[in-house]
Amino acid sequence: MGDLPSNKITLGRYMWERIHQIGTDTIFGVPGDFNLQFLDSIFHVDGLKWMGNMNELNAAYAADGYARIKGVPGCLVTTHGVGELSALNGIAGSMSEQVKVIHVVGQTTRPMQKANMMIHHSIGDRPDHQVYNNASRGLRYAAAELWDVESAPGEIDRVIRECFVKSGPVYIFLPLDLSAELVDKALLDTPIDVQPHVDEDAQKKAVEAIVAALKEAKMPSVLVDAWTQRFGAQEEATQLVRKLRVPFYSANMGKGVVDETEEMYVGVWNGDVSTPGLKEAAKAADLVLTLGLIPCDTNAAGFSRVLSEASTIHINPHSVVVKDQIFPKTSMKPLLAALTSALPSQPRHSIPKPVLPAPRTPLDKDATHLTQSFLWPAIEFFLRPHDVIVSETGTSNFGICDITFPSSVHLVTQIYYGSIGFATAATLGVDVARTELAGEDEGRTLLFTGDGSMNLTMQEIGTMIKEGRKIVVFVINNEGYTIERLIWGAKQPYNDVVPSSYAHLLPLFKHPHPESSFHRATTKEELSAILQKEELKKPRQLQLVELVIPKLDTSWRLGTQLASRSEEHRKYLENEGFVDTYGGWGLDGGAGGGGVKWS
Amino acid sequence: MGDLPSNKITLGRYMWERIHQIGTDTIFGVPGDFNLQFLDSIFHVDGLKWMGNMNELNAAYAADGYARIKGVPGCLVTTHGVGELSALNGIAGSMSEQVKVIHVVGQTTRPMQKANMMIHHSIGDRPDHQVYNNASRGLRYAAAELWDVESAPGEIDRVIRECFVKSGPVYIFLPLDLSAELVDKALLDTPIDVQPHVDEDAQKKAVEAIVAALKEAKMPSVLVDAWTQRFGAQEEATQLVRKLRVPFYSANMGKGVVDETEEMYVGVWNGDVSTPGLKEAAKAADLVLTLGLIPCDTNAAGFSRVLSEASTIHINPHSVVVKDQIFPKTSMKPLLAALTSALPSQPRHSIPKPVLPAPRTPLDKDATHLTQSFLWPAIEFFLRPHDVIVSETGTSNFGICDITFPSSVHLVTQIYYGSIGFATAATLGVDVARTELAGEDEGRTLLFTGDGSMNLTMQEIGTMIKEGRKIVVFVINNEGYTIERLIWGAKQPYNDVVPSSYAHLLPLFKHPHPESSFHRATTKEELSAILQKEELKKPRQLQLVELVIPKLDTSWRLGTQLASRSEEHRKYLENEGFVDTYGGWGLDGGAGGGGVKWS
Repeated sequence: MGDLPSNKITLGRYMWERIHQIGTDTIFGVPGDFNLQFLDSIFHVDGLKWMGNMNELNAAYAADGYARIKGVPGCLVTTHGVGELSALNGIAGSMSEQVKVIHVVGQTTRPMQKANMMIHHSIGDRPDHQVYNNASRGLRYAAAELWDVESAPGEIDRVIRECFVKSGPVYIFLPLDLSAELVDKALLDTPIDVQPHVDEDAQKKAVEAIVAALKEAKMPSVLVDAWTQRFGAQEEATQLVRKLRVPFYSANMGKGVVDETEEMYVGVWNGDVSTPGLKEAAKAADLVLTLGLIPCDTNAAGFSRVLSEASTIHINPHSVVVKDQIFPKTSMKPLLAALTSALPSQPRHSIPKPVLPAPRTPLDKDATHLTQSFLWPAIEFFLRPHDVIVSETGTSNFGICDITFPSSVHLVTQIYYGSIGFATAATLGVDVARTELAGEDEGRTLLFTGDGSMNLTMQEIGTMIKEGRKIVVFVINNEGYTIERLIWGAKQPYNDVVPSSYAHLLPLFKHPHPESSFHRATTKEELSAILQKEELKKPRQLQLVELVIPKLDTSWRLGTQLASRSEEHRKYLENEGFVDTYGGWGLDGGAGGGGVKWS
Repeated sequence: MGDLPSNKITLGRYMWERIHQIGTDTIFGVPGDFNLQFLDSIFHVDGLKWMGNMNELNAAYAADGYARIKGVPGCLVTTHGVGELSALNGIAGSMSEQVKVIHVVGQTTRPMQKANMMIHHSIGDRPDHQVYNNASRGLRYAAAELWDVESAPGEIDRVIRECFVKSGPVYIFLPLDLSAELVDKALLDTPIDVQPHVDEDAQKKAVEAIVAALKEAKMPSVLVDAWTQRFGAQEEATQLVRKLRVPFYSANMGKGVVDETEEMYVGVWNGDVSTPGLKEAAKAADLVLTLGLIPCDTNAAGFSRVLSEASTIHINPHSVVVKDQIFPKTSMKPLLAALTSALPSQPRHSIPKPVLPAPRTPLDKDATHLTQSFLWPAIEFFLRPHDVIVSETGTSNFGICDITFPSSVHLVTQIYYGSIGFATAATLGVDVARTELAGEDEGRTLLFTGDGSMNLTMQEIGTMIKEGRKIVVFVINNEGYTIERLIWGAKQPYNDVVPSSYAHLLPLFKHPHPESSFHRATTKEELSAILQKEELKKPRQLQLVELVIPKLDTSWRLGTQLASRSEEHRKYLENEGFVDTYGGWGLDGGAGGGGVKWS
């Protein structure tokens, strides 16, 4: 670098400086022939770190997890073709779930591209080097397809802004030769504007309409969902529910977005499959104000949270819908702040908080072996403020949605996109982001996954060990894809997976204390003892907890959701021998289910 | 199934029957919500087997490996979005390397698609369910986008034919609801025509031109490459070189396509970086007849095998080029057969086979620790007829290209596409196909990979163990991406990988005899002893051999290739301390390199 004029930096360095300026401190990825040279520049940026992954899909998941916690883009680097395509499913997940990710792809040089050279990783005898770029067009919000050094800095800045404003994945395609060309260092002095441009007029009108509708309502409620978090409006949402002082709920994906310790929080409103009493309480509202709602099947027990549009206000990321009026071009975070300001300082409504029946007693309460009905309440007790939970699509998500969080607990999960394997690799990024924000003294990163899902991305446990991450990994070993067994083919071989002897996972990756860091629970008693261990309360290395659970045991939430599909499916579950924890696969809450009371 | 009319079958069953009819006996893949129901139909097809994979990328690699050995399509099943995208890099590899793969994607139901429903795995609030189908458009030869039961059987038949004729990946998108609809069983009675349609006139003219050009030449030679194998013309190519009786060579990718024990085989012509003497021998020809040539950078030491078009005949999969004449619309397999028939029964040329200098003595011959210069000759000695070798992009490929194969040895490698991680997962499919063809008594499946590459797809070792595959896995443990260290950043942390204690890999996946099946060589002596073991000669379970080699040790072929880039790069290699096995990183063959002789 000594030969460069002092007022110049390479374009590669410029890109990393820009990414670091917006708050991204760790770069994930996998090296390859067409990115090696500009990876060097990462080490020239003060405070920017490189963390290599075991493969590119895992890198995409890790960057996604990082972004969800830190609120700024996660970034991964891959190489032309083989690398970028491997990451694509992870990127599509960030698109689906509105997560800020910058995917930097090291491309073949411009002369190679122009001459359609048969460089390795290509296709055909006169290869179009853009074929992989084309593959990801529908799976990103913007792309900087860099071709010359004059326009490249502006293009990089543009897509970084788009990543923030749209809250989703963007690409930077950087030809290897271009990365070494020089740009003015002074360009770094002007910060990238990452704030949304607010249409003050649209916002004002939307706020007025919301305030008027709330004034009219007798019994409004609030439903918080995950876009609130993705668009950085958690604090504004919290202020709003405090000032409104009406009962509020979360969707599954919105769990923990506003603290569950807030006074008027009732619980997770998962449509027809909700904790006994909760659905009745939620339906008592005559107006529901949704914040960042995601009305997909898996976020409300198969579209069973039916909202009447005539009595609904939707505050979406870029629009507001008040009953039959639409206000486009708004922006969620400033709009929520303006709304809270516009509300009267004394709450207009005085609605008692609904009181749900006491927890039911599971029918398998006397079993000594470990069950799902025992596991999740035990985990609820294990949680501490500031923990971050990463929970996998599968039985884990249904269990996690059933427990209440202490304050300042964040949940990372992919309930809309639902790509199994996500949770394990995302956990790496989550933990890095969590400690960058909070340091090592506060909170823990806890992963809940299953044997089937972990198999897909299990090698990323190796990166966690290499990097000394103090994560607690819980893996439910229930001999395969239990969630799929509930859907179809309970005993079909395609729902079996490769069995693992998890005691070998830590030493495989040279964990420094593999024996004292591995824990295995087959009984309730064993789990209770494990959860009391100091290593889990304040881990000093990665801890692995294997939870051995029978393969047809499931949470009432998952069983009930599938039983509610049809009478035929309920019979299927019974005939195949699934464990119905509260009896009858009932939508009425089964054993011990009672009605709601209003305190 | 008992309720079906006896003359009807489900469309799902129809698809599997068709795939089985063309010779595919094993289906790879990962179950998911949108394929479970029609996975059941696999078990209704006599002789068709299901083999689940650890993730979808691995499934794509396994199907690719299966196809390469069996000569019929490999098949994998994935689910909408999350599954199909994860497989995409593997599919692109099949596209790049002309491998027959059928990718069946279980899609959301037609009503879900038509209504743009927010079903999990989707993107947006009015999702286009075709967004993932669109992503793979440039990475396939054909797709059956199924929408109604009337046209679906014909569409399935059409893409199966395209898969054969084009020799590359095709897709079948099967909406879950459509898979259960009924079609006439009698449709199965008409076999799918998978033969190319030969333009007899084009073939005749091309053969005449080739025969004339060969007659004119004083010293013709043949260069065999991999498309010959992909288009099923191995036997025809063998008959051709026998009848011509002129020296013949293989490209790296064409290694083993025609037996290396054939009388006139000289060796691998890797451009400037070839075994001493070989390049001079190859350049003595006044006419080179190429068979299925792939003129990419990695198949000839960075485009250094320069052929003069004025003295070249190219027999390509779908065309013939004789010097400046082009004959389109030919088909390689029938054309080669016609060419051999048209040649005079007595060879026209009497060219002695060139004799290469005796093997050189490596400078590190006295080292006791294991070196690359010792490893590959030892492996040459270890090989037996009918073995199948799977070799990874990285140092393995450079070593494998340096040794001579016994008869009937097949090499599977991805030298053009070059996606690391391919070899490990492809090995599963290779082994399944090999034993389907040859049974268990003949030959072995041998994988050569490195610690860096294996990390990407290591979990597929678990499937091999679960399925009782008797594979011998060699993993070079040299502390990271050695091939990348040679290119750039020799000591940069991005070229380090997560270290593994491989003794734990077999017990992790519950191998029945993990201790006796794991072998570790740090010295030459240890390797020699291991290669003598009965377990490796005739494995009864999967065997894992860890080869511990210093991280800057490399094969002369790889070192020389990179040293030949520039004087600057040669200095880089020397300064960083790479081991130069024969001295001088010379293109002259270094120590002991001598000229060619003609016997």
